[in-house]
Amino acid sequence: MAEPIEFYFDPTSPYAYLASTQIDKLAARHGRTVDWRPVLIGVTILQVMGLKPVPQTPLKGPYSNQDKHRLAALLGVPLRERGATPMASPVAALRAFVWLKRRDPVLAAEFARRMCAAAWAQGRDIGDDTVLQEAAALGVDRAPLAEGMTSEDIKAQLRDDVQLAISRGVFGVPFFIADGEPFWGVDRLGMLEHWLRHQRWDHHDIERPTPPV
Amino acid sequence: MAEPIEFYFDPTSPYAYLASTQIDKLAARHGRTVDWRPVLIGVTILQVMGLKPVPQTPLKGPYSNQDKHRLAALLGVPLRERGATPMASPVAALRAFVWLKRRDPVLAAEFARRMCAAAWAQGRDIGDDTVLQEAAALGVDRAPLAEGMTSEDIKAQLRDDVQLAISRGVFGVPFFIADGEPFWGVDRLGMLEHWLRHQRWDHHDIERPTPPV
Repeated sequence: MAEPIEFYFDPTSPYAYLASTQIDKLAARHGRTVDWRPVLIGVTILQVMGLKPVPQTPLKGPYSNQDKHRLAALLGVPLRERGATPMASPVAALRAFVWLKRRDPVLAAEFARRMCAAAWAQGRDIGDDTVLQEAAALGVDRAPLAEGMTSEDIKAQLRDDVQLAISRGVFGVPFFIADGEPFWGVDRLGMLEHWLRHQRWDHHDIERPTPPV
Repeated sequence: MAEPIEFYFDPTSPYAYLASTQIDKLAARHGRTVDWRPVLIGVTILQVMGLKPVPQTPLKGPYSNQDKHRLAALLGVPLRERGATPMASPVAALRAFVWLKRRDPVLAAEFARRMCAAAWAQGRDIGDDTVLQEAAALGVDRAPLAEGMTSEDIKAQLRDDVQLAISRGVFGVPFFIADGEPFWGVDRLGMLEHWLRHQRWDHHDIERPTPPV
């Protein structure tokens, strides 16, 4: 059995949302599973790199804002313009994810997909209320989750996970690692699929890509 | 006749080199021509954005260094590791390009392709000597070029071209604009081709892409 594909996400990124709609199908086409891993891009990783968040970067911000809608159309998934709705911190969602992943990684991945979709397909806040609602919709009891996601243990686990991601070279989201090969960006899904299919880079007989980017 | 595709390049970028090997063929497949346009990424545009050059950015630098070799293999073109050879300023090459473009845009594009290849396929310096050698190989007389590329007129033209690029939203290389649609990165060649083919983003019946990224 081949190794799982590491998929690093942060629900505050529209590009991570777009990837969250594709990665499991893509992996399954090649007999792979996906190991969903949380990162905190907005603060932690950009601090390591000394960069501003993309939306606040001149020139790149407006491009990214236009680009995400083109990619959503290409992938055939909804993307809602958030407008004035401020993006909540991803910390609550990611702590809940960490807590769920210890119990059931498959359920945790479904929760993560729902949090990404809440933020970007539905334009919702992703703070505590949405976290508890979406977990409840998956059959997760409210009280143990609410307690678990604020425990020191889970807080430390998320910090450790982010440090592990940095040690693996993750510097943006979505980020994929397959067999040690790193891929940054939803626009690299085609290249990731090329890797899964051929396991080499000098193979030019490219087949029809799915998805189309 | 459809508008030319604007192609923004800086020969110091390996990604611009990779795109320089593909863009004219890609455009020709769709009955388009290419308008090669110079930019100065390393200094001017990164200053506007307040960013560090990619090779000096933690995490992103090592990724980019690995990634450019994968892309070269995928595209089937040579890419030479520069090692300790420092990259010369692109200013001489781009001033020569500007001077040539006023006389013959097709010849100027061929000169630009050669300067990109000198830097990245051959690992050569791209300062004055290489500029004059490569222009001579295209039948350009040395004396008028040497004089022209140091004239105040040409210096001002390059500065104006860079400002024009910034006003068009260009923030990295390679950068393409087709029918007002902006595309950043050699990994967007497939998306550019999708645009040229369909002129819309909600068309999901994707055909075999060329090139494979």
